[in-house]
Amino acid sequence: MPTFFPRELQNLVERGRDRQLRLAVTGLSRAGKTAFLTSLVNQLRHAGLEARLDLLPAAREGRLLGAQRVDQPDLSVPRFPFDQAMAALDAKPPTWPNPTRGISELRLSIRYRPKRSSLLGSETRRLSLDLFDYPGEWLLDLPLLEHDYLSWCLIQQQTLGSERRGLMQDWLAAVEDISPEDEADEARLATIAEAYAQGLRAAREAGFSDLQPGRFLLPGDLEGAPVLQFFPLPGLDGMDPKQLAALPKRSVYQTLARRFAHYQRHIVKPFYREHFRRFDRQIVLVDVLGALNAGPERFADLSRALSALMKSFDYGKRSLLSRLFAPRIDRLAIAATKADHVTPEQHANLTTLLEALLAEPLKDLRFANVPVKALSLASIRATEARELTRQGQTQPVLKGTTLEGEDTLIFPGEVPPRLPDDAFWARQGFDFTAFRPLPRASGALPHIRMDAALDWLIGDKLR
Amino acid sequence: MPTFFPRELQNLVERGRDRQLRLAVTGLSRAGKTAFLTSLVNQLRHAGLEARLDLLPAAREGRLLGAQRVDQPDLSVPRFPFDQAMAALDAKPPTWPNPTRGISELRLSIRYRPKRSSLLGSETRRLSLDLFDYPGEWLLDLPLLEHDYLSWCLIQQQTLGSERRGLMQDWLAAVEDISPEDEADEARLATIAEAYAQGLRAAREAGFSDLQPGRFLLPGDLEGAPVLQFFPLPGLDGMDPKQLAALPKRSVYQTLARRFAHYQRHIVKPFYREHFRRFDRQIVLVDVLGALNAGPERFADLSRALSALMKSFDYGKRSLLSRLFAPRIDRLAIAATKADHVTPEQHANLTTLLEALLAEPLKDLRFANVPVKALSLASIRATEARELTRQGQTQPVLKGTTLEGEDTLIFPGEVPPRLPDDAFWARQGFDFTAFRPLPRASGALPHIRMDAALDWLIGDKLR
Repeated sequence: MPTFFPRELQNLVERGRDRQLRLAVTGLSRAGKTAFLTSLVNQLRHAGLEARLDLLPAAREGRLLGAQRVDQPDLSVPRFPFDQAMAALDAKPPTWPNPTRGISELRLSIRYRPKRSSLLGSETRRLSLDLFDYPGEWLLDLPLLEHDYLSWCLIQQQTLGSERRGLMQDWLAAVEDISPEDEADEARLATIAEAYAQGLRAAREAGFSDLQPGRFLLPGDLEGAPVLQFFPLPGLDGMDPKQLAALPKRSVYQTLARRFAHYQRHIVKPFYREHFRRFDRQIVLVDVLGALNAGPERFADLSRALSALMKSFDYGKRSLLSRLFAPRIDRLAIAATKADHVTPEQHANLTTLLEALLAEPLKDLRFANVPVKALSLASIRATEARELTRQGQTQPVLKGTTLEGEDTLIFPGEVPPRLPDDAFWARQGFDFTAFRPLPRASGALPHIRMDAALDWLIGDKLR
Repeated sequence: MPTFFPRELQNLVERGRDRQLRLAVTGLSRAGKTAFLTSLVNQLRHAGLEARLDLLPAAREGRLLGAQRVDQPDLSVPRFPFDQAMAALDAKPPTWPNPTRGISELRLSIRYRPKRSSLLGSETRRLSLDLFDYPGEWLLDLPLLEHDYLSWCLIQQQTLGSERRGLMQDWLAAVEDISPEDEADEARLATIAEAYAQGLRAAREAGFSDLQPGRFLLPGDLEGAPVLQFFPLPGLDGMDPKQLAALPKRSVYQTLARRFAHYQRHIVKPFYREHFRRFDRQIVLVDVLGALNAGPERFADLSRALSALMKSFDYGKRSLLSRLFAPRIDRLAIAATKADHVTPEQHANLTTLLEALLAEPLKDLRFANVPVKALSLASIRATEARELTRQGQTQPVLKGTTLEGEDTLIFPGEVPPRLPDDAFWARQGFDFTAFRPLPRASGALPHIRMDAALDWLIGDKLR
């Protein structure tokens, strides 16, 4: 049984009266977490005024009265930098907000009229919505709990495709000289671990997602601590596990295994215990278009990363997660972001491609009876859809301004409705252009299907 | 009773056999912690070879055989960046190492021959020396535990001399409009708190030391968290404490008081509980010369900061610290650093000035029977002492290279043997020049009285 602190007790009471909801937003680096959360807060604050939220019944029916930012309950969690994000969008020219690092939080108090009582008159209610934003990379560390150091080393070999081997070159060269039975030299292990972390960072820069351990990418206050100075030893597959286990305490193998275990216990578990198990709803953002643009190795890598990430939502009774932390997320959304970067008739394909990408994990989730919805959206729409008529033929196009400031009219290509095959990659049929945000006209940010996401995530609480 | 983890148990066993010692180094920002720890490790590694450690009997008697770096026990504590520091000193031209942030650790295994058994022959022993480096600013937060929010607000008024008021101007202007009974507006409190933190940073840049709360200067992973978003409310001295306590939960006063209490419980106490109470020996470094150079307000500020800092070592039975954490530091050194920045005949004055500056805390420590030694030293000597004869008069001078790269011969002035009076400040008799490190000739770094410090801090364990 968990112990309840007074605040948690109060939260429980509010939850009992259906008045509190903890909604978490995650996604791999560059999936658009900051834009999503900024837009979500912006839409709810402008609900009942300029915001277009027709797919959210409470808004459509005029029952959503607005939202205020109020004090967040967790004083040690950084506040989500909403004002800074809006300032970036309001800059001239507008820019995308800076990405957040680590976890952040913001609490909204939403005022609405319940559906039934609208007959009776002016009764209003409040819903406390706690919003959390955290790196999807942290979820990639969950599968790490299922491993001991040896099995983790073996499985990490699979991540090394030819492109990633190239990015890991320095590390591969450094780790070659080291044997599991060598006496551990602290400085040398630190050097090799730093090469490993640099390889992971380079892979992320190059668009890869399946990167473990996740904290190596954002070490924060743990920079330079031995707990972040391990790496998978190559060449263990031919070795006898018993012999490895019998190596002396000061051997390279045992030292790295100790650090791996410390990482599991003091880095991975605390996130699930202190944050994750308290979330009620979750949305996972996925940059499908970016991966599509980056080629087959990175697309396969995204697929692997998403499968790993989705394990955090598989609450089958026998899952590792349920045994360890008893999480309670009761509704999940998975969204392909940046839908405004393709023409509207491609949106349906974008959603089915996302579903294809997640086919295996979605099966598991449905089997485990976790309600999940896949959709495509644009948190902050940066383009306008137009049609171009040339020689009697009509072609849908996007009008927008590139990051470099050039006004442009383009057709980025077709999104395949299922997992792309070799023929697709051979055609190189997709040409993704990044756009800067539109200059802001009204108070509410333009979007695509943010209201559908909101309806799925919080709509039932606004009845 | 504390619970003992296996590691702590093992530590206890080693300690019982007198084979482990945890030595902590601290000092206010710029006091020279990194240089001290770098030199300490360097001297012990070169003991028995090039290091000059005549004031350390084990070295003088040839019984100190050397030291190896070994794995540190605390995997979550960043490792002290010794190699990076040495690389900076070996650069061309040599530069001072980058300052450390937060706590860091390094473990040495020292090999020595015990004094008695040298008669018997070749018996050698090992001492595990765990070195810790942490910001003195963290100790300035201890007095904060003696306060509630109200009394802290009142006492913080004392820190605002005319110069610091100038540095705090933005904050003073922002805080003027806010009343304790106002409803708390999160964004507004965040803005005012940021102005307060900026004022503290500006004050530190300008050479001030008495800065609370210490974590505002180095927020690390807590950047943007509400626990770092409070500040002392001015103008509370005329108010009725009962009325303040009765203000609503969402008032400015109650909100700030809650954050203050969270800071005490979740920031200040964990440092003492997890680190401080496990230190055996401590050296506090003080940049007396820098303060002397910076004028009377900053010198008074240093004096106040040191008094606050020294409370962490006052183990009188009824002290707050003893009640809360039962610390066990059994020997303390206080050192005026950068002694190489004045001519040798001034060193005695430097030590007596340090003692004068610490007169009150030293009385308390002696009363509490905590062995303490004051000394002056240069961790890494950057000058050479020379004599200049002019018109038959001999004048001691320093030869060194300024940070800008200019070779120079200077007499920086006289250090007053007691607390400087108005006449001293009127004369402006002291002209401090910062020197770059000397190019390195041998393996051991040149120093002044590092051996005396080592003898006091670890000499008794090498008998």
